[in-house]
Amino acid sequence: MASSPQTSRIHKVALLGFGSVGSAVARVLCDSHPAALELTHICNRNIARKKTDALPASIRWTEDFDEVLASDADIVVEVIGGLAPAEDWVRRSLAAGKSVVTANKQLIARRGDELLPLAHELGRHLLFGAAVAGGIPVISGLQQGLAGDELFKIHGILNGTCNFILSHIEHGASFAESLAEAQRLGFAEADPTDDVDGFDAAAKLAILARVGLRSAVQFSEIACRSIRPIQAVDFEYAHEMGCTIRQISRAERVDDVLLASVEPGLVPLSSPLAQLEGGQNMVLATGRYGGDTVFAGHGAGGNPTAVAILSDVLSIVANPTPAVPGPPPVRRAANGNFTSRYALRLIVDDRPGIIVEVASILAARGMSIDAVLQKPGFAKNALPFMITLEPCRHTDVEAALEQIEKLPFVTQPALVMPLLDL
Amino acid sequence: MASSPQTSRIHKVALLGFGSVGSAVARVLCDSHPAALELTHICNRNIARKKTDALPASIRWTEDFDEVLASDADIVVEVIGGLAPAEDWVRRSLAAGKSVVTANKQLIARRGDELLPLAHELGRHLLFGAAVAGGIPVISGLQQGLAGDELFKIHGILNGTCNFILSHIEHGASFAESLAEAQRLGFAEADPTDDVDGFDAAAKLAILARVGLRSAVQFSEIACRSIRPIQAVDFEYAHEMGCTIRQISRAERVDDVLLASVEPGLVPLSSPLAQLEGGQNMVLATGRYGGDTVFAGHGAGGNPTAVAILSDVLSIVANPTPAVPGPPPVRRAANGNFTSRYALRLIVDDRPGIIVEVASILAARGMSIDAVLQKPGFAKNALPFMITLEPCRHTDVEAALEQIEKLPFVTQPALVMPLLDL
Repeated sequence: MASSPQTSRIHKVALLGFGSVGSAVARVLCDSHPAALELTHICNRNIARKKTDALPASIRWTEDFDEVLASDADIVVEVIGGLAPAEDWVRRSLAAGKSVVTANKQLIARRGDELLPLAHELGRHLLFGAAVAGGIPVISGLQQGLAGDELFKIHGILNGTCNFILSHIEHGASFAESLAEAQRLGFAEADPTDDVDGFDAAAKLAILARVGLRSAVQFSEIACRSIRPIQAVDFEYAHEMGCTIRQISRAERVDDVLLASVEPGLVPLSSPLAQLEGGQNMVLATGRYGGDTVFAGHGAGGNPTAVAILSDVLSIVANPTPAVPGPPPVRRAANGNFTSRYALRLIVDDRPGIIVEVASILAARGMSIDAVLQKPGFAKNALPFMITLEPCRHTDVEAALEQIEKLPFVTQPALVMPLLDL
Repeated sequence: MASSPQTSRIHKVALLGFGSVGSAVARVLCDSHPAALELTHICNRNIARKKTDALPASIRWTEDFDEVLASDADIVVEVIGGLAPAEDWVRRSLAAGKSVVTANKQLIARRGDELLPLAHELGRHLLFGAAVAGGIPVISGLQQGLAGDELFKIHGILNGTCNFILSHIEHGASFAESLAEAQRLGFAEADPTDDVDGFDAAAKLAILARVGLRSAVQFSEIACRSIRPIQAVDFEYAHEMGCTIRQISRAERVDDVLLASVEPGLVPLSSPLAQLEGGQNMVLATGRYGGDTVFAGHGAGGNPTAVAILSDVLSIVANPTPAVPGPPPVRRAANGNFTSRYALRLIVDDRPGIIVEVASILAARGMSIDAVLQKPGFAKNALPFMITLEPCRHTDVEAALEQIEKLPFVTQPALVMPLLDL
């Protein structure tokens, strides 16, 4: 325990939650049986249905968290997810002198400001390497491996479900068909909001911003823009520009503000972000001294997440005394108002003079058109075309769009995507 | 210090070596001035010529290591390189109660077996994150972030100089011209042996094997095969196969043996390894549970290496008590006898029956030809062609080659490269 470093005694681990991640944690822990660890408790509802002979008989199964709290387990692994009861159980575990390892991104993104100092005060670990990008060791990479740099920008792909859906649309399906397929295969939940509207990735981005950019932001200030409007035709235009479309999470420190957004973006086909498959995630961290560092791998799934959790548990074994915290993250206002090149996709009921009208609205706001792309072969009454803009701010694009969408020939909601020059 | 964890007092840092890395460490440390660190000593030869006003006047410059040893600096940063006097100075620093951060790959690859347990016995840190892949946090990633996995394979590109030279050859230059250009630009040393013959990468691979594969190997048992025989025509054949050529370092645990080599290899153009530029490095770690994890970034250069060093120094500040070491790495015999598809490039004085003679030698050893590639447009008396083989062991290829190179029409040394299916 914390009071006796250097002793490699057995640490007793209690597991809260026995879903797909929890059962993977139990299996990996018992299969790889590190000498210093013993899984002693599993706490879940309906243990009668969960209990399995594949795990050692010595494990105590319980539905009662208080039993865990009263036990001599000294490391609690929380893989329940969500805020209730996870937050309360984590607080009580820490207060009872236990260290906590969690995979709960919502908990850290929304309550990290309170829980991390609390763990420090109590002299206990609260580690959360599994909360972002599953098996990819990006939290330890930012917190330790790149601690010597001054990171100012982090971007990447943090949601594998969107990767899957976008790949499907790229091959010609509609958003609705692609989502249904992802749900059928278990890659998307019945309510896909968190994934497709960006909230899942935003929670991870908030954690990366805290750890890597030393910025604490209001979760709600991260701009989340959905991938729902994406159509197959958008990929045709993207390809014409040498790009594809990905759900991009990015955060950048600019003066006192943190620019932060999760949104569909155009990425060059030659970029590593364009080449990610299925459940893979990628994080690029940019520092003042070290330039770009890339972390990539399996961002989700039971086993990769279990690796991240077990790595945190082993880190407690290796360093029983929690690390002396660096300076706390600075509270910063956040917004998604990046200055970028943007692409604007409109679907119109074709008639003469459309480009003139759109261009006039943009010009009146000092925005310059870079190119207009229009592919042949679409119905005249639902004609998609794409305009790319010279670098401007997202608020300018939004304001122009508000006017443009009122034009009588614009028949469907427009799509705005930044063009990421990587 | 180690005896009083949780106190964030000032740690005094002494720097041994003030070349390109040392001066970057001093500059980054003084520019970013972390609250807990103070650079107090710089030890180098010819300090009169090295001393600079750009650093704080409070720093003590000395040519005498004993002065550093007697000082109250508690963290020694060693960036001299090589074994002498670095090894002696590191041993004496540890014995004097100081922790050591080193960027010295030869020291850790060749003396890690003694020095790391010594540091542990003395209760001091000996950290070496900067010894492999410069600014890429792969050591902490393997040691902590992926500690929960059972890694069995590590491969990647660990030498930027070879990247540069191979890119140059790919654009039509000879090896000699490309090397000269790399030397002119300062990317290659006057004696390029360490880089082009693989010894530099092999030292890094030995360290990755120790940390990630928990395998201690004799440095000399890692098979090093030079990139010197590579010619522009080899890239033409590589492209025909959808590949390019890179110096690949790889290590894989197979039963009790560690397969380990540094050699030119064919990698698919679609692979992330094919897309690395200039001084970039990439490491892929493959685990039983987490699959592939990728680390990439700037593998060399003063600033990225300084980031890695400063990150290790800050890790000492955060965790004053050295980590409880896991089980020591297992001593394993190593060899480069990977089973792979291989490509064999021969240069012959053309005449009828060449393929028959070569194929007979291969067939007699049970080796099957997959394809024969021959591009038009070469002189008949120095005609290059490439044979790809179905999976076989490197020793089989070598044995066959010994016979093949004795054939009268073979006019230049052959080139063997594994074909990496990534």
